[in-house]
Amino acid sequence: MIEHLQKLPGVGPKTAQRLALYLIERPEKDVLAFAQALVDAKRQVGLCRICFNLSVQPVCDICRNPHRDDRVICVIADPRDAIAIEKTREYRGKYHVLGGVISPMEGVGPEQLHLQELVHRASKDTVEEIIIAIGPSVEGDTTTLYVGQLLKPFVRVTRIAFGLPMGGDLEYADEVTLARALEGRRELDY
Amino acid sequence: MIEHLQKLPGVGPKTAQRLALYLIERPEKDVLAFAQALVDAKRQVGLCRICFNLSVQPVCDICRNPHRDDRVICVIADPRDAIAIEKTREYRGKYHVLGGVISPMEGVGPEQLHLQELVHRASKDTVEEIIIAIGPSVEGDTTTLYVGQLLKPFVRVTRIAFGLPMGGDLEYADEVTLARALEGRRELDY
Repeated sequence: MIEHLQKLPGVGPKTAQRLALYLIERPEKDVLAFAQALVDAKRQVGLCRICFNLSVQPVCDICRNPHRDDRVICVIADPRDAIAIEKTREYRGKYHVLGGVISPMEGVGPEQLHLQELVHRASKDTVEEIIIAIGPSVEGDTTTLYVGQLLKPFVRVTRIAFGLPMGGDLEYADEVTLARALEGRRELDY
Repeated sequence: MIEHLQKLPGVGPKTAQRLALYLIERPEKDVLAFAQALVDAKRQVGLCRICFNLSVQPVCDICRNPHRDDRVICVIADPRDAIAIEKTREYRGKYHVLGGVISPMEGVGPEQLHLQELVHRASKDTVEEIIIAIGPSVEGDTTTLYVGQLLKPFVRVTRIAFGLPMGGDLEYADEVTLARALEGRRELDY
């Protein structure tokens, strides 16, 4: 049990031991229920066949939701990014999960990402804007460039803003962030 | 000595004691030179009479530098912000230091800031753009709004971008930062 627990992200030998002792002290039915839940989740959760987000159904809740705006698709690297964006409660469009970013160092090329399906979705008449919401890094910028060139013939492509984070003091911002904040300055429109 | 050292920002009783013992163990001439440097700096450093940045001369190095672009003025709250922006090596214009932000809670109103002088500078024909580089916060946003309304009749006013910082993963961004990054998205222009 300890060997398996130790493989979890962020769990080292000491934590694994602590978790194992906790589980040993539980009633057997609790441990059985926990084990069953792991297997059930693993078996039931797959990828939405439209947006490739995690989903129990063949098509995920967001793709099926008629109140979500299907004129806008937000392209993200990872299902976790959708959770982060949903928390803002500001976005009412759909998503498309690439399943990673282009990274020659880690052997991830465009062909490993869900790009063909994205081109197919973006080329539909209903889609008016593709928002690329991929974080700023070498791999993120490469992926954004690639996706942008792929989609521009079909549709308007935008990218989320980079700059000072909320509560960010200029003094504590790193130089690249500050340079991007200056470069990305916008007309004051109020 | 310890009482005085303890008043420095970030110096608690223990650090003050450590610094004091260090100074006691130095040769007397070093301590005299240190004390003199404190007094000299305090006496010599004043505010530039054009931009209100810290300066030994009546007019600071940046204001006197003919290679700095005087068509652009970057409005900042504090001299430290100029140091941060200079480190990016991306900005070639001039500065204007407000000397704080509008904060009713701390009793700072517009009249305490170097705003009249800014209006005077911005209304000159040579000035083409005012970049407001004040961090995002309630006080920062209020100040930006105020400065913007004051200057718009004379000149183009822009504001630095807010969004994801460099290396910022969407997953770890707070909700307001992510909402601003989405709201501030821009056309992909490559």
